[in-house]
Amino acid sequence: MTKQPIKIIVEVSARHLHISKADFAKLFGKGKKLTLMKPLVQNGHFSSWEWLTLKTAKAQIPHVRILGPLREKTQIEISLTDAYNLGIEPLVRPSGNLDGTPGITLLSDKAKIKTRGGVILSQRHIHTSSKDAKKYNLKDGQIVSVKTFGQRSLIFNNVIVRIKPDYIWRFHIDTDEANAAGIKSGDEGELILN
Amino acid sequence: MTKQPIKIIVEVSARHLHISKADFAKLFGKGKKLTLMKPLVQNGHFSSWEWLTLKTAKAQIPHVRILGPLREKTQIEISLTDAYNLGIEPLVRPSGNLDGTPGITLLSDKAKIKTRGGVILSQRHIHTSSKDAKKYNLKDGQIVSVKTFGQRSLIFNNVIVRIKPDYIWRFHIDTDEANAAGIKSGDEGELILN
Repeated sequence: MTKQPIKIIVEVSARHLHISKADFAKLFGKGKKLTLMKPLVQNGHFSSWEWLTLKTAKAQIPHVRILGPLREKTQIEISLTDAYNLGIEPLVRPSGNLDGTPGITLLSDKAKIKTRGGVILSQRHIHTSSKDAKKYNLKDGQIVSVKTFGQRSLIFNNVIVRIKPDYIWRFHIDTDEANAAGIKSGDEGELILN
Repeated sequence: MTKQPIKIIVEVSARHLHISKADFAKLFGKGKKLTLMKPLVQNGHFSSWEWLTLKTAKAQIPHVRILGPLREKTQIEISLTDAYNLGIEPLVRPSGNLDGTPGITLLSDKAKIKTRGGVILSQRHIHTSSKDAKKYNLKDGQIVSVKTFGQRSLIFNNVIVRIKPDYIWRFHIDTDEANAAGIKSGDEGELILN
């Protein structure tokens, strides 16, 4: 009997920001709130109407969207293509693991701040509910692979599994990874257990 | 006995152009020759001092290098990142296979032409000499995979093997693919036979 393949929907993350309450107040003023533009697939997560410009000595990238809700720590997720354009060397990190990462200048219409760190290339990851994790025998932090299909078929290694009770079963990659694979949000990959 | 892994050096191709004699004459004037800036690894291939601007209704990309020598057909090799910026939809193709590919406007300092086609995403490929191909039991046009290593380890599927007597053993990918894999020219991959 052949095993049923475990399919997973791909979501491509464009460059984006997570902002701490303190940094948000500095950039947008006290009392201002993050405003919902579009809910994301993961429960409670959303794209906001607010955006910032990323600035380095070499270049700047405008209109970088802030994702809500506000977080404990400011985190700037870019692609390696962006990093070359900006002249910085971010590290590949899971979300929230920011020790030793480079900083960047963030500009709003009314203020600017220089972050101490927070710029990362997001490590490829799978979001899964506790229920799906149990079904597929996955543990939080486990490393798996995901195969994508088509002319530019890739097998992504070093995919980290993130479990939360209400997470939706999705595979997250950045725009460089999506372009290399020739895939878009909504395409399907297949889990490979190592 | 475990099989010895077959290593291969990666080369990353930035966006570039191959130009036909007729198009070169139109863009740079009759009698002008392509001038060598830097030899490439493959025998007889070189980066030239000449470059062109790629132009579409949406955007333009300046300083796109012409690789020599001149060819039968004009071919424009870009990344999918470039394609989004330019607003065009190139096809993934092996070099030289240009039927049905979109065209683009090419600008030099003195002239411009609109190509009928020729814009491609280069299919990942291996260059190999006849001798190495024999050693590894590879055929021209064969599809293999290549694994790369590190935090962003990938397995590239649909890698096409190209054999010529004097080719040097190399694995060619574009900048999106290199960024997704977190690798640079000179890094090593490993052949996987399907």
